[in-house]
This record gives sequence, C-alpha cells and structure tokens, in this order.
Amino acid sequence: MRRACITGGAGFIGSNLADRLLADGSEVVVVDDFRTGRRAFLGDAAEHPHFRLVEGDVLSPGILEDAFAGCDWVFHLQANADVRHGLERPRLDLEQNTIATSKVLEAMRQTGVSNIVFSSTGSVYGEPELFPTPEDAPFPLQTSLYGASKLAGEGLIAAYATGFAITGVICRFVSILGERYTHGHVIDFYRSLKDDPREITVLGDGKQEKSYLYVQDCIEAILTAVARHEGQGGAHVYNLGTDETVIVDESLALITGRLGCTPAVRHTGGVRGWTGDSPLIRLDTSKIRSLGWAPKLTIGLAIEKTVDWLEANEHVWRPQVQP
Amino acid sequence: MRRACITGGAGFIGSNLADRLLADGSEVVVVDDFRTGRRAFLGDAAEHPHFRLVEGDVLSPGILEDAFAGCDWVFHLQANADVRHGLERPRLDLEQNTIATSKVLEAMRQTGVSNIVFSSTGSVYGEPELFPTPEDAPFPLQTSLYGASKLAGEGLIAAYATGFAITGVICRFVSILGERYTHGHVIDFYRSLKDDPREITVLGDGKQEKSYLYVQDCIEAILTAVARHEGQGGAHVYNLGTDETVIVDESLALITGRLGCTPAVRHTGGVRGWTGDSPLIRLDTSKIRSLGWAPKLTIGLAIEKTVDWLEANEHVWRPQVQP
Repeated sequence: MRRACITGGAGFIGSNLADRLLADGSEVVVVDDFRTGRRAFLGDAAEHPHFRLVEGDVLSPGILEDAFAGCDWVFHLQANADVRHGLERPRLDLEQNTIATSKVLEAMRQTGVSNIVFSSTGSVYGEPELFPTPEDAPFPLQTSLYGASKLAGEGLIAAYATGFAITGVICRFVSILGERYTHGHVIDFYRSLKDDPREITVLGDGKQEKSYLYVQDCIEAILTAVARHEGQGGAHVYNLGTDETVIVDESLALITGRLGCTPAVRHTGGVRGWTGDSPLIRLDTSKIRSLGWAPKLTIGLAIEKTVDWLEANEHVWRPQVQP
Repeated sequence: MRRACITGGAGFIGSNLADRLLADGSEVVVVDDFRTGRRAFLGDAAEHPHFRLVEGDVLSPGILEDAFAGCDWVFHLQANADVRHGLERPRLDLEQNTIATSKVLEAMRQTGVSNIVFSSTGSVYGEPELFPTPEDAPFPLQTSLYGASKLAGEGLIAAYATGFAITGVICRFVSILGERYTHGHVIDFYRSLKDDPREITVLGDGKQEKSYLYVQDCIEAILTAVARHEGQGGAHVYNLGTDETVIVDESLALITGRLGCTPAVRHTGGVRGWTGDSPLIRLDTSKIRSLGWAPKLTIGLAIEKTVDWLEANEHVWRPQVQP
C-alpha cells in the first residue's frame, strides 16, 4: 500500500493501525475531529515524515476529498461506537455511521480511490440462531440502532462495489481490546473498581457470553484481508474475532484478579445488559483463518494487557477536571 | 384499524391502499409531495369524509408529526422507487429511502404511533444463491443502492421494534402491477411500443426472470400481515409475490399480444439489464401464504390488466406538453 487514509485515525483501532502502516512503509493520512479520538494516540505517528493529519468532521464538506487525494486505500474506522446508548440519541448512529459512510464512498468516487476497509460489527447478526455465527448466517433482524447503522454502511459499500467497481473489505468485529482501548465493558468495570473496589454493579445477569479480540490481532487480520482482495473488486465480508468466548462475570474476575481486589458483585438481572444487548456473541472465524491468519492472544491475555495499559495511562480513564 | 397514515399515499400502491382502507371504514391520512404521486389517483378518496391530505415532503420538519397524530398505523410507502438509475444520483436513495424512514420512525415516537408497515423489496436479496428465496436466506450482499437503502430502512425498523416496542411489518415486494401503475418494465415497454410499434430494445438478453404481483393481491397480503401482528411487537418480514416468474421476453410478448403489434426485438445483451439488475427474482412466499393469503391473479393476467389500464389512461404515460 502506497498511501492510506484512516478515518477515525486518532481513535483506538485507527491510531494503532496508523502506527502499523507507517512502520510498514506506507504514507498515512489521518482524518479525525478529536470528538472521541485523542491527540496523544497520534504522538508517535505525528513525528513521522510520511504522516499527515486532516483535522475535521467527516461530514464537513471537502474534508474527505482533501484527505483521500492520492490514496489507494481508505480505512473507514470513524464511527459512533456507542452501542449501548443508541436509543437515547437515535439520530447519532444514522449520521455518524450510515450517512458518514455514504460521504466516504462519494468522496472515494470524487478522488478515484477504489479500495475500502469498513469497520462493521458482529452486532449486525442481532440475536442469531446459529453459533458460531458465519458470515452467511440466516438473514438477521437488527436489534440495535448501532447494528442497523453498520448494516446500512455494509449495504452501501457492497452496492458501490457492484456499481462503481470499488473493492470493499467489510470486517465484522467482536469487541476489540488492547493498548489505547477507551470504550466498553472492560473500561466500565475498571473505572468502577478504581472508584470503589469494594463493590460493583453488572448489567444483566452476568452470564452474557461475549467475544473479544486483541487490537494487534485485529489489525493483522484486516491487513491479511486487504492483501488478499486489493484491486479485486467486489465486497468481501469477514468476521474478526477469536474462537473463544468469555462470560461477563469471568471477564470481571480477570480484571479484579489483575487489580488484586475482591468486590461484592451486584447483578441488575435479565439475560441482556440493556435493550439490544446480545446475550451471546460467538462468531465463526474460519473464513479469515482460511487466509492464514490466527490470533496470537487469548481473550484472557487481551483483558490483562488492557488492564495493564489502563493502569499505566490514567489520563485515558480518569475524568479530566476542567480548569 | 381506526386511523391510518399512508406516506406516498398518492402513488401507485398508496392510492389503491387509501381507497381500500376507506372502503373498510378506516380514517385515512395521506402524506405526499406529488413529486411522483398524482392528484388524479386520489380523486375518489379526496371526496370521502374520512380522508385528509397532508401535502409535503416527508423530510420537511413537522409534516409527519402533523400527519401521524391520532393514527394507529403508518404505512410507509413513500420512496424513491427508481432501482435502475440509482448510480446516477447515489444521494437520492439514501435521502428518500433510508433517512426518510428514520424520520418516519422518529415522528412515530413523537406522536405515539406504534405500528408500521414498510414497503421493502426483493432487491435486498441482491443475487441470492437460494431459489425460491425465503425471508431467512443466507445473509446477502447488496447489489443496488436501492436495495441497500431499503435494507437500511428494514434495519432501522427492526431496531426500533426492539428498542421502542413498536410493531413492524416489513414487506419485501416483487414488482407490483395493476391500476395506477406508473413505473417499471411494463410501462417502459408500453411507452416504447406506443412510440414505435415496429421495433423495441430490451435491456440485457431478455432472459432475466422476474416476478410480479397484482396490486390488489399485494394490498390483501399487507392487510393479512397487519391483522396478524397488530400490537404484537417485534419486526415481521414477509416476501410478497406470486410463486410464478416470467422472463422479460415473455412479458414483452404478453404486452405486444395485448396491443396487437409484432415489433422486431433487439437485445442489448448480457444477463443483467443494467448494473445491479437481478437476473433472477423468485421469492419463497410460503410465509405469507401460511397466514391464509393467496394471490388471485396470475402474472399474465396482471400484465394484461395493467396494459388495459394504460390504454384507458393515456395521461399517465404520455409526456405532458408544457403550455
């Protein structure tokens, strides 16, 4: 890859990807408005001569056209990644995920970029009947606005692949963990334990079965699919995850074990942590494995690595006091 | 049903549905901006004391809230229904189908309407591998912006059904024919033959296999699903079509037979009529049939009925000369 643009490139996965692509010898353009992305995550990349930052909202006119010029790949990672609170602001998922993806595709047409990676989600399977869930599972019903907005993005990319001869690599992620992780179960538990290590509340019955993937394994999987499909045309869907799952109570135990605390655990009850929560996520990853990829870290190790990183980076999880 | 709002209620299916619901004793509110809907189609309904017209674009602020007040059902039929030309104006499907559906759902929340019928399409199956294609076919890839935009609408409705306890009836239509038909293969052929009955051009190889359903059969199927699911919660997906198919050359022969002309037929070639065209549409309709519904008209009779109606309604297909 000669030059890549990463939307949301100051975020968790995006900034790790930027570092990786720069190390691999590519030029990298990051688009980010720093609403959830963090300048500190681009600390290393910003020093690199092959790095360029385009600061702004992907929905602002001209931003993407500026950023995409001369790129051969777009990694469209910018998103509203807040699954749980979708119902409070339904417009957010539509704008930040669906409409933004349409803008990205139009800007690709304008600038002649013909390869895109899209960060989709295992949430598009809703509550599947088939486990582990393969990419061609029975046509699912959506259960969250987040999943629906990502499904809409997938549909746009596949239609553009048919209509405008672009190549789309659609990655359906499980939850990603690792360095620069800022959002999700693990940080919620971590914050709560830092605030009060004696007790913690778990949404649902704690038996929800989740899957996680370490961020460097995620990036390796993305680049494996990229190498396989570059310039090939069509839309190519991959589940990205481990073959393991972990129940919520177990992941909490891994965190408390690492922190050396033994809180009293209160469950709010019910098989779902919130409306639209999937009680069971277990993706069939044989398709990406068939390309030669395999994860290096277990879920347990990924959780421990994440906790260790949070311990060393208090600025990420400690609310800032406004001066 | 006490009071129903029909978006796109001056269109082909919408105006037929309005007449039917009024005849069944319901109050009917039609929302239409007459961009493609026609005032003439509301001729009968407009005289009815239980009819109200709200003229305007569904995307305009306040229009839907006005129209939905006091309704128990919304039939969201307004759409950009132009499958073939989606690639020329990619923004149109996004705005008219996806974003408009989001507006409809938000307006339902604002006004407390909790039941919706959505006019989706067999195009969401892209180019399926399974025929006849059931509602839970393998998770498809989108091949048209139209299909993608309708899939996005389906996803929103299902997510709202989970999150906000609405009931969604999602109908995946084949092409609909009958009185007030204004758009699609049959009228394209009809217009061309009226212009020059000696020759006609068919997009593709003419062997594309399509499915059609008569508009009154379509409405009966919708109302069958409505009666089954009202107030039940959840999203319920139904294929609506006949179990027949007809190849494009055969449908042309039915039209020329009805018109008594014998044109030379030129094929542009290729298995698809245009980029994103589905060479084969055959839906499994056993789910809607299991509710007791069956179509009354064959595809052949539906095509003949449509041609007869076009013959009697020149104003629909003859371009108007501007004064």
